[in-house]
Amino acid sequence: MVTEDEAMRRAVALAARGLGTTSPNPVVGCILLGPAGDVVGEGFHAYAGGPHAEIVALAQAGERARGGTCVVTLEPCNHTGRTGPCSEALINAGVRRVVIAVDDPTPVAAGGAATLRAAGIDVVTGVRRAAAEAGNIAWLTAVRRGRPYVTWKFAATLDGRSAAADGTSQWISAAESRADVHVLRSTVDAIVAGVGTVVADDPQLTVRDLRDGTLAIKQPLRVVVDSSGRTPVNARVRDAAAPTWIVTAADAGAGPDGRVDLAAMLIALFARGVRNVLLEGGPTLAGGFLAAGLIDRVVGYVAPKLLGDGRAALMGAGIGTIADAVELDFTDITQIGGDLRFTATLRPKES
Amino acid sequence: MVTEDEAMRRAVALAARGLGTTSPNPVVGCILLGPAGDVVGEGFHAYAGGPHAEIVALAQAGERARGGTCVVTLEPCNHTGRTGPCSEALINAGVRRVVIAVDDPTPVAAGGAATLRAAGIDVVTGVRRAAAEAGNIAWLTAVRRGRPYVTWKFAATLDGRSAAADGTSQWISAAESRADVHVLRSTVDAIVAGVGTVVADDPQLTVRDLRDGTLAIKQPLRVVVDSSGRTPVNARVRDAAAPTWIVTAADAGAGPDGRVDLAAMLIALFARGVRNVLLEGGPTLAGGFLAAGLIDRVVGYVAPKLLGDGRAALMGAGIGTIADAVELDFTDITQIGGDLRFTATLRPKES
Ligand SMILES: NC(=O)c1ccc[n+]([C@@H]2O[C@H](COP(=O)([O-])OP(=O)(O)OC[C@H]3O[C@@H](n4cnc5c(N)ncnc54)[C@H](OP(=O)(O)O)[C@@H]3O)[C@@H](O)[C@H]2O)c1
Ligand SMILES: NC(=O)c1ccc[n+]([C@@H]2O[C@H](COP(=O)([O-])OP(=O)(O)OC[C@H]3O[C@@H](n4cnc5c(N)ncnc54)[C@H](OP(=O)(O)O)[C@@H]3O)[C@@H](O)[C@H]2O)c1
Repeated sequence: MVTEDEAMRRAVALAARGLGTTSPNPVVGCILLGPAGDVVGEGFHAYAGGPHAEIVALAQAGERARGGTCVVTLEPCNHTGRTGPCSEALINAGVRRVVIAVDDPTPVAAGGAATLRAAGIDVVTGVRRAAAEAGNIAWLTAVRRGRPYVTWKFAATLDGRSAAADGTSQWISAAESRADVHVLRSTVDAIVAGVGTVVADDPQLTVRDLRDGTLAIKQPLRVVVDSSGRTPVNARVRDAAAPTWIVTAADAGAGPDGRVDLAAMLIALFARGVRNVLLEGGPTLAGGFLAAGLIDRVVGYVAPKLLGDGRAALMGAGIGTIADAVELDFTDITQIGGDLRFTATLRPKES
Repeated sequence: MVTEDEAMRRAVALAARGLGTTSPNPVVGCILLGPAGDVVGEGFHAYAGGPHAEIVALAQAGERARGGTCVVTLEPCNHTGRTGPCSEALINAGVRRVVIAVDDPTPVAAGGAATLRAAGIDVVTGVRRAAAEAGNIAWLTAVRRGRPYVTWKFAATLDGRSAAADGTSQWISAAESRADVHVLRSTVDAIVAGVGTVVADDPQLTVRDLRDGTLAIKQPLRVVVDSSGRTPVNARVRDAAAPTWIVTAADAGAGPDGRVDLAAMLIALFARGVRNVLLEGGPTLAGGFLAAGLIDRVVGYVAPKLLGDGRAALMGAGIGTIADAVELDFTDITQIGGDLRFTATLRPKES
């Protein structure tokens, strides 16, 4: 016997397993309870083109789903996409009750709850909504705004330096933090860096070294913001390890300063199915994103070191005085190895 | 019935109430247990010149101390200073057993344990030593080195800025953080600032606004590091609210650059009874302290804000490359208001 609330907690946890591989779809988790309240099936949406969470759970449950309850993190879809509508599959399976955390905000997929109700099924929404929304924050924000959710990640010392006076920065952060960045990369659809970083550090920008030893099942798209196309021909971002888009001003459009129009670039990424972006800097590009209001979340790895000189992690965001500082809220503070990792979300502007 | 271990936990907590008012003495807490193991007296050393913790506890206990146990965070003193030796008072009171956390490292006060043992009293040392040492870290470090313990405090944004591009910095940190700084000030003997900060901000550098509404019973000495004596005559640090020392190169000696010799200044402060110093900046003076190896601990208030421009909290420490970064360890990470406060201690150099 599992309560619906407990089943939803588990469904939210299951959903998270799909992070990084479901875009342009959301992550979804589903638990099926039999008529006696025992778990008869569970599933999550693992990758775009693969079966939806409800279908995975129904296949496991078979006849045991009849008369039971479907507990699902997102409103079941109502449309025939790469798979048939989940609302119909639940009706056919004889489910008597459907418990939903979050309504589907997309016009094309929504309507599942109405279809289920019309078929005489008991439908409840809003159970553990906050937790389910947090688990799907990138996708929900992206589809509401029509541009990907952007997390800016940086590493710095206690005194806010991202590199020493001579430009050296390897390694500011601990091995554990660097491994954590690979986990973060594995949850996104695209990794974005400025051409300055590509020229200076020649990073590969792939998902490697996952802590559990697994290989990434999908490499994020590598995106280099490079107005005039000066990424070296032999740069590692051009290797075969992952797809790459070198975004020039000609490709994406230019802002008034002749540089890549970052908002237009994000809209183009959305059109390509990207919902979740990790911005890895450097400071100039991060400043451009911040100035354009395009950062949603910041993840900082702070190493317990002091330098007293060297460059900052963020430059040229166009903020001149303390009253105009961009305000955030800490949502998580964790020690990773000897470092401190914080997560902070931008405070929504009053409109 | 209280165990000796639990009594020591309580003694360590009591000791902390003396922080900021006992210098040049250490903080000490004491619990007296009667023969049946019940608490018959407790005390802490509250201010220099006042009774020691053991004497306060003995006065409370009276005859009930006879045949009992004295649990005390620091080895009872053996010398006649402003008060008589505590070892003698314990012997006279008929205490049968003394439990000590930390040995007294000062030649003049040490020897209490030996005196007690010679009188036939059972003496145990090292109970909760780590906790008691941590509670007395400033005093212990200071007497071992012959210079005060130095905590550098700063406030910055997520991207490591201590002021905006136009120089404004009020307020980077939240009201709760600023109140916490007053609590921090109330635990030290001296507050040190550079003349640059005095000229720019005209701070008063006193203890105010304590959270519990109490007034500070002792204001720390205000120290302005000012090689050529250019602190304005009407600067607030010169007001009557607290004693002040404007340290010129003539006073304290000059380094090769003609500026105040910071190590010599700290030795002079030690000679004046200062054991615990709060360095409040600015960035140039903090860089001077770091370069001279004179910072023991860092307390940073990090506000969830982004600026992308403006000055850093630390400058000119003479570190050129990442391998030479000064390494620390986080000892505490706490959220204060909307801010994050970290405490980190300098890693001892291998010698
Ligand atoms: N500690 C960390 O977390 C971290 C992370 C990454 C990098 N870094 C360091 O950062 C340094 C490189 O940073 P950087 O600031 O020189 O370069 P960057 O931020 O990586 O790239 C900046 C470049 O991006 C291009 N760009 C195109 N459109 C832009 C727009 N709209 N806004 C802003 N930039 C745009 C510009 O070059 P074009 O105009 O030519 O296109 C610009 O010069 C390296 O030393 C690297 O080690 C540190
Ligand atoms: N956010 C924060 O936590 C925080 C805290 C404090 C200050 N601040 C900001 O910092 C700014 C002032 O900083 P600042 O760097 O200009 O000045 P500062 O660090 O307050 O003072 C530096 C001055 O101290 C004197 N000094 C004497 N001996 C020294 C030595 N051995 N090493 C280093 N300095 C020595 C020097 O002047 P002489 O040679 O003339 O003696 C030097 O110019 C203000 O804008 C203030 O708002 C921020």
